Amino acid sequence: MGFDDARLRSAVARALLGREAGEAARPAGHAAAPPAAPERHADPLPATGAGAAPADPGPGHRDRPGYPRRGQLRADLRYGRSEQQCVPGGRPEPRCHQQGDRAAEAVQIGRPEPVRDRQQSQGGGDSGAGAGAARRLSARDIAALTNGELVGPPDATVSGVAPLDRAGPNDLSFLAARRYLQYFQRSSAAVVLCKPDLVQEAPEGPACRVLVRDPHVALLSIIPVLYPEPAWEPGIHRTAVIGAGVVWQEPVAIGPYVVLGGGVRLGRNVRIGAGCVLGDGVQLGDDVQLLPHVVCYGGTIVGNRVILHAGVRLGADGFGYVPGKTGELPRKIPQVGRCIIGDDVEIGANTTIDRGSVDDTVVGPGTKIDNLVQIGHNCRIGARCLIAGQAGIAGSTHVEDDVFLAGQAGLADHVTVGRGARVTVQGGVIGDIEAGATVSGYPARKHREFLRAQGALYRLAQIVDDLEALVRRTDGSQR
Amino acid sequence: MGFDDARLRSAVARALLGREAGEAARPAGHAAAPPAAPERHADPLPATGAGAAPADPGPGHRDRPGYPRRGQLRADLRYGRSEQQCVPGGRPEPRCHQQGDRAAEAVQIGRPEPVRDRQQSQGGGDSGAGAGAARRLSARDIAALTNGELVGPPDATVSGVAPLDRAGPNDLSFLAARRYLQYFQRSSAAVVLCKPDLVQEAPEGPACRVLVRDPHVALLSIIPVLYPEPAWEPGIHRTAVIGAGVVWQEPVAIGPYVVLGGGVRLGRNVRIGAGCVLGDGVQLGDDVQLLPHVVCYGGTIVGNRVILHAGVRLGADGFGYVPGKTGELPRKIPQVGRCIIGDDVEIGANTTIDRGSVDDTVVGPGTKIDNLVQIGHNCRIGARCLIAGQAGIAGSTHVEDDVFLAGQAGLADHVTVGRGARVTVQGGVIGDIEAGATVSGYPARKHREFLRAQGALYRLAQIVDDLEALVRRTDGSQR
Amino acid sequence: MGFDDARLRSAVARALLGREAGEAARPAGHAAAPPAAPERHADPLPATGAGAAPADPGPGHRDRPGYPRRGQLRADLRYGRSEQQCVPGGRPEPRCHQQGDRAAEAVQIGRPEPVRDRQQSQGGGDSGAGAGAARRLSARDIAALTNGELVGPPDATVSGVAPLDRAGPNDLSFLAARRYLQYFQRSSAAVVLCKPDLVQEAPEGPACRVLVRDPHVALLSIIPVLYPEPAWEPGIHRTAVIGAGVVWQEPVAIGPYVVLGGGVRLGRNVRIGAGCVLGDGVQLGDDVQLLPHVVCYGGTIVGNRVILHAGVRLGADGFGYVPGKTGELPRKIPQVGRCIIGDDVEIGANTTIDRGSVDDTVVGPGTKIDNLVQIGHNCRIGARCLIAGQAGIAGSTHVEDDVFLAGQAGLADHVTVGRGARVTVQGGVIGDIEAGATVSGYPARKHREFLRAQGALYRLAQIVDDLEALVRRTDGSQR
Repeated sequence: MGFDDARLRSAVARALLGREAGEAARPAGHAAAPPAAPERHADPLPATGAGAAPADPGPGHRDRPGYPRRGQLRADLRYGRSEQQCVPGGRPEPRCHQQGDRAAEAVQIGRPEPVRDRQQSQGGGDSGAGAGAARRLSARDIAALTNGELVGPPDATVSGVAPLDRAGPNDLSFLAARRYLQYFQRSSAAVVLCKPDLVQEAPEGPACRVLVRDPHVALLSIIPVLYPEPAWEPGIHRTAVIGAGVVWQEPVAIGPYVVLGGGVRLGRNVRIGAGCVLGDGVQLGDDVQLLPHVVCYGGTIVGNRVILHAGVRLGADGFGYVPGKTGELPRKIPQVGRCIIGDDVEIGANTTIDRGSVDDTVVGPGTKIDNLVQIGHNCRIGARCLIAGQAGIAGSTHVEDDVFLAGQAGLADHVTVGRGARVTVQGGVIGDIEAGATVSGYPARKHREFLRAQGALYRLAQIVDDLEALVRRTDGSQR
Repeated sequence: MGFDDARLRSAVARALLGREAGEAARPAGHAAAPPAAPERHADPLPATGAGAAPADPGPGHRDRPGYPRRGQLRADLRYGRSEQQCVPGGRPEPRCHQQGDRAAEAVQIGRPEPVRDRQQSQGGGDSGAGAGAARRLSARDIAALTNGELVGPPDATVSGVAPLDRAGPNDLSFLAARRYLQYFQRSSAAVVLCKPDLVQEAPEGPACRVLVRDPHVALLSIIPVLYPEPAWEPGIHRTAVIGAGVVWQEPVAIGPYVVLGGGVRLGRNVRIGAGCVLGDGVQLGDDVQLLPHVVCYGGTIVGNRVILHAGVRLGADGFGYVPGKTGELPRKIPQVGRCIIGDDVEIGANTTIDRGSVDDTVVGPGTKIDNLVQIGHNCRIGARCLIAGQAGIAGSTHVEDDVFLAGQAGLADHVTVGRGARVTVQGGVIGDIEAGATVSGYPARKHREFLRAQGALYRLAQIVDDLEALVRRTDGSQR
Repeated sequence: MGFDDARLRSAVARALLGREAGEAARPAGHAAAPPAAPERHADPLPATGAGAAPADPGPGHRDRPGYPRRGQLRADLRYGRSEQQCVPGGRPEPRCHQQGDRAAEAVQIGRPEPVRDRQQSQGGGDSGAGAGAARRLSARDIAALTNGELVGPPDATVSGVAPLDRAGPNDLSFLAARRYLQYFQRSSAAVVLCKPDLVQEAPEGPACRVLVRDPHVALLSIIPVLYPEPAWEPGIHRTAVIGAGVVWQEPVAIGPYVVLGGGVRLGRNVRIGAGCVLGDGVQLGDDVQLLPHVVCYGGTIVGNRVILHAGVRLGADGFGYVPGKTGELPRKIPQVGRCIIGDDVEIGANTTIDRGSVDDTVVGPGTKIDNLVQIGHNCRIGARCLIAGQAGIAGSTHVEDDVFLAGQAGLADHVTVGRGARVTVQGGVIGDIEAGATVSGYPARKHREFLRAQGALYRLAQIVDDLEALVRRTDGSQR
């Protein structure tokens, strides 16, 4: 690979920043994507049923009728809304599940209340009304929504968003960095959000452009309109097991096979996915969404506007034992603290956060946690932290506000990571980190020192033979 | 950060030991905790329902009526016991779930057998009898239970345990290290377990002290009394799917939506949480507790007194394939061995332990495994090991007795880690480790060597320019 | 440990190759296994029920009546087939669950259709017909199935496979490496698959030998015969919640408490384990098997012949936020792409693969993924990759065909790992890796360079004091 300090530094910075601020800068991976089918909508619904599901069905499925839009797991699977027509024919006897039979169940699942269109106020939205009603935006709309400057025909329309190399004539795309100019020039996108300086350099490429300061931020105004979250239907699925003394604020949606312990308290607009289990006395605030299979142990407290993804485990016993003397079994220290999650937190799939031992484990407001992260007992995580996938935080460690932990970073127990500090990919922190520092490696050291040491190491590897000889020689010659 | 060998060594040792023996030494994180509300019981039950759940409700909830004590997920959510009164009023129309409606279900869930108070023999206990009956201990009781020496008023009473900085006038706290003296002096705790030498130095602070050799070990005698595990009610939830030929010893508790395959065998006092799935022929010993959503593949064998936390997967197929020649698909090697878990093992949330390929995967008695750990097929893990969060052990590796693996440690396949060895945080072991060794880094080396190398590396980084010049110069001058 | 370059290199290579090709070379860990009970079948069914389940029941259970053979979780637990007789007596009142009571449920679970013996065509097979019908193979059969050369009595028979040190007189074993000769010489196996050159050196040991070029590959022909996958019974469990517009190809098996959203499409021979949740519009191809508790978010597409192990989460939202300015909350970037899994992929327990943000996340055909792996949004994983346990791949990274990632390897976002490259245990990749390269360490560098640097580091640690003195001295003497 041929590293040198500069390349190394740059690469590390990219790795760190990419995952950190980079989501804003590069939300979609489009660099090396194959120049796949440029047409969306061009893929007709196959005549056969699921048996024909291809390994990679290619693009174009997203906005055809029946294709689930974002968030639909959240609402629809619980109530069996059908946007998809049954597909007869094709393979022999595809069993179509529609009216009779078990489909009756689909009707029973949700309560026949009117849909409360909370999200739709955001996006307008008539999702679910079929393909003909798919939302479209004109270039003029896009310019208005993004405060951008329209260059080109104002009546070009789009119904989806895609990276430049995969966008078709119904898609909006975006050009945010010079290296994607090559894809821009070949793109079939109907409209492209562009940084003004880049588009100067691009005589070719789609004619209809909307100039905006930051195309990725601009997308935040567009995606909710083109991909509105589906409405969800309030109701308690007939199979939910509800403990005594459970209290909630209408509307809520509780999916199939959910189990709520005694004294659980749910705020308004709480949606609980299939199979979730909440122990006794769990509290969820308003607008909380639990995807399927979340487990909260008894006493867990969750704030408002929190999203817990599938398989999250909150409040399990921490790893606390008194080691035995030789040959004795370790003795379990009872874990009686709580697990408390602040407002506006999102927690990724299969992440685990233990309850406190005697104290509590606390995650501060606005902190975002990726998949498969482990947070031990008694940890205090501050506000607005970003904790990437598979990071781990051992017990009783304090992470102050605005800290960023890159993927697979590890923090030992009883350390403090200061406000705004950053730990790069796989960094292993075993001592306190001062506020604002960026650290790397194990044991984690200031990133700059780490890079210098790594550079020195590889340069040294090339001269170590010389050095050993040198030591021998000079020792001989000078003593 | 300014590392030197000594600091590094100390920090590493702390990281290692902290997670290892440190649970005994520092079970609660109290170092930098904010000096939060000193009053417990002072927080009245809010008038509103769950919608008011704050991000951090502060202390004081633990022993109010209805607050779930430890272990309640285990028993109560399955049977809907209500310790919590319904809270009317507050927000408009909080829907109260109590007598009619679906609450009837809560009654059906458990069988109306008398509660068998297994745990309560330990703690005395009348848990569930309402707030008025919350357990209280006097300082005299505490001294008796801990074999401690009482200093101060013998009639001070406590109903909970909290770290010094968060303890209120109904709390017991503990002072185990000099650095917490500052919190001690300001603490509102009613009673404090103290090391005798420390308390000499503390003229201020709570007057009522119980002097004990090890405050954390002393807590092990107190916590079960103040936080008794709730009684659990035996019974098979009406929704459990029980295969043919399932055998068990009364009493057992099987929660909602549990699925037991054919020929499953359960010992006495087995408790199986909501949604667990046990494949055909799974065996669980006596006093085993499965939290919700555990999956054991067919043939898994679990010993006595084992605790499996939410989302544990035992006995999945190991990662075994015959790589194909160029362009051929890898061929799966059928995995037909078993996954066998010894007595007194505890396994953390979302941890995965694969079945053997032809041989078995075995975890020895008394071993404790944290969350998100991966153990591959054919591994042999000895007795009394402690395996911290996100550690990973590849296939066919042998870990002998009393080994400690710190967080995110990784062991390659087919290696042996000798008895009593320790692998520090993120250590990557790719060769055999001798008994009693402590190793660090990747590839893992003896901790002392690792520290020396790290020290050398950072010192060298500072002189590498000089060195390169030196090599050039001396080469020139001496040849 | 006493490392030197050679040993290090060898150890690293072993670690890498072991997990990579080694599954073929060493599927079973038998090196240090205790010389446990040599007799299989010798272990009578204990008179007591599950209460007697020992921590390590020792060998011999695999082929006794009622012992679940491989795959039985998959089919049987859903339909309650009983191969196990009820065991009365023993402990007081073992509750036997057979005819009355809830056992009726077991009958209802599966539909009384004839078993379709798809797998059995492979293995012959009459599994489930009781102990007397356990499959046996003669040495002559084994030689025929493996194209091996029989040495010894052709009528020796076996009913199981075990490593040399645990094999009994009814077992087939295998000798593939010289270091296992010691176990061979003491083995009680009835028949042993041997490499021809090794057996020359072994005058002792089992007399009946089948000489084959690669004993592990040969086992692939034997295991399916001795351990046939049980037949599975098609049917939809009465508790499954099926959304509107769900389509499938008979036969399929849908287990208890499964939830299928609207418009889900299932291919032929799809088997869905207990508690799985498929969001709206999820598509599964033919011959797909979902073990219990898999969650696929809406829109996930899975190819043919895919195996998803317990707790897999496909299609969760990626980790995408626009960081706020000081004190502002991060803003969630809506994740509207898909998660697409190719044909012949196997994904291990509790692994998580996110949906794309705007683009899709794609896993190529024939790729095998171990437990607890994290793959971020917009990743493109090629064909036939092997991704070992706890590896992590950040967003928008491209992994080309035939790549091998060892355990706990980590790839930063937006990098490309070239075709056939290998990342060793815990390697941390933060820049592009060229095709065919093997890289190690963090930041990952070519394995050879890494080894050289590590070697230099540890040699330097030994001379750094000398060096510092040297610099001082020569600086003094030469300036």
